[in-house]
Amino acid sequence: MAIPTVKGIIMTSSFQASIQLKVRDYECDMQGIVNNAVYQNYLEHARHEYLLERGLDFAEITRAGVHLVVIRAEIDYKKSLKSGDQFKVISCLERVSRLKFMFRQKIVSLDGDQTHIGACVFCASLNDKGRPASFAAIEALL
Amino acid sequence: MAIPTVKGIIMTSSFQASIQLKVRDYECDMQGIVNNAVYQNYLEHARHEYLLERGLDFAEITRAGVHLVVIRAEIDYKKSLKSGDQFKVISCLERVSRLKFMFRQKIVSLDGDQTHIGACVFCASLNDKGRPASFAAIEALL
Amino acid sequence: MAIPTVKGIIMTSSFQASIQLKVRDYECDMQGIVNNAVYQNYLEHARHEYLLERGLDFAEITRAGVHLVVIRAEIDYKKSLKSGDQFKVISCLERVSRLKFMFRQKIVSLDGDQTHIGACVFCASLNDKGRPASFAAIEALL
Amino acid sequence: MAIPTVKGIIMTSSFQASIQLKVRDYECDMQGIVNNAVYQNYLEHARHEYLLERGLDFAEITRAGVHLVVIRAEIDYKKSLKSGDQFKVISCLERVSRLKFMFRQKIVSLDGDQTHIGACVFCASLNDKGRPASFAAIEALL
Repeated sequence: MAIPTVKGIIMTSSFQASIQLKVRDYECDMQGIVNNAVYQNYLEHARHEYLLERGLDFAEITRAGVHLVVIRAEIDYKKSLKSGDQFKVISCLERVSRLKFMFRQKIVSLDGDQTHIGACVFCASLNDKGRPASFAAIEALL
Repeated sequence: MAIPTVKGIIMTSSFQASIQLKVRDYECDMQGIVNNAVYQNYLEHARHEYLLERGLDFAEITRAGVHLVVIRAEIDYKKSLKSGDQFKVISCLERVSRLKFMFRQKIVSLDGDQTHIGACVFCASLNDKGRPASFAAIEALL
Repeated sequence: MAIPTVKGIIMTSSFQASIQLKVRDYECDMQGIVNNAVYQNYLEHARHEYLLERGLDFAEITRAGVHLVVIRAEIDYKKSLKSGDQFKVISCLERVSRLKFMFRQKIVSLDGDQTHIGACVFCASLNDKGRPASFAAIEALL
Repeated sequence: MAIPTVKGIIMTSSFQASIQLKVRDYECDMQGIVNNAVYQNYLEHARHEYLLERGLDFAEITRAGVHLVVIRAEIDYKKSLKSGDQFKVISCLERVSRLKFMFRQKIVSLDGDQTHIGACVFCASLNDKGRPASFAAIEALL
């Protein structure tokens, strides 16, 4: 299945996860819209739910010494969410290099007609010493 | 219908609202459990959903000049929530005095067997000048 | 030295810590004032700074298996903080029982004339198994 | 004066603002480090302080109908901040096109030797109807 990328290019991925959320009023700022940083909360939650659907529990692997870290985020803010809005966060994962991978994510309206956020979030896996390392559990996803 | 209060006293209320949520990992702190302040986020969201179920949209009434404010919160932390936990927030509302009212809220496990949080949140309604004022829309709930 | 309690009673404590902060705009909600839950963030940060001033690093003792947890919070919201406001958080600590202690905290204007928040935050110390336990490092503070 | 950009290119700007902050423990997640979304909070606060130093109060201009919005953020996560860390956020502003501008920001250690975050945050100014619009107050900064 295919979802458009941030730049508008079509991307194919073998697995996509989608979660449905609703804006909570404390997430809105004085402009009456969801604060910019909050979208990163939504995106992180969606990535962890993506991993969970594929059998990886983030809290569990963290305790086991596998540290997934974000190394770069590119986020396009297309249309603000506001109080009461419901939305979906769609995520898929692809390999970038031997030790790097990227989540391609977008936040869209429930009917999918409106894109609120498009994002590319680059990640790496580190061992307990903070060194880049390959883990079978993550390799299996790519 | 009756829910136990924070102190263990049974309370009767004509209307109860319940929402179901799941812990998001960014809500957990270095202790690996949901941070104390986050429960207030859950409770606020549950209060606004309570109001919505009864026909009051918080964002809308705020724009209309009705300012619902918390004046006192009493929160009992009984059992921490952790990554992945699902839970319910149950809320009901009662009058305290002519211009004050209180939400009685609790956060419980999905089966209701475990109480995580018990709370009494006292509120007042203020007009645009920040003075306590009575509003028909709120009176109708009490 | 003495600070008034939430209820207006004078309290004596051998040690007080004060930190100075400024409201950040992302902490304000659609009402244009600091969101209720954020005050708990301020209060927690002030408690950890209090501990640090007295030689206890919260992150360090957590890693060492000493879990300080909040068991009850009573918070009086007296006057909202808004964008740009600067304020002080004053904290002191007292024993409640053998295994419980309480932070008495208030958030005041820089000149101390205006009280924004008064709070009593009850805490307990737990061991790695989540059982109440006494720790010399904490006893030394009381 | 010049600061290195995210990509390592030197950038000249007529004005730079720097603020000094300290990590608060509630900003750390279960990995024991500052959560990814929190850096965006730091960056936003630094942008608003930048504007303030140049005479623009964000809350005030928002009330006056000038809506500064982020349209794209590129954030490089170079080295995590952890409990107790103190740091500086350095910000400067440049024009991108007639109606777009960009904050170039970095988060560095107090001595400036360690870069934690590098970011390019693209903004636009909208009028009350949500349409891109030019405002004298913002033009004066560019």
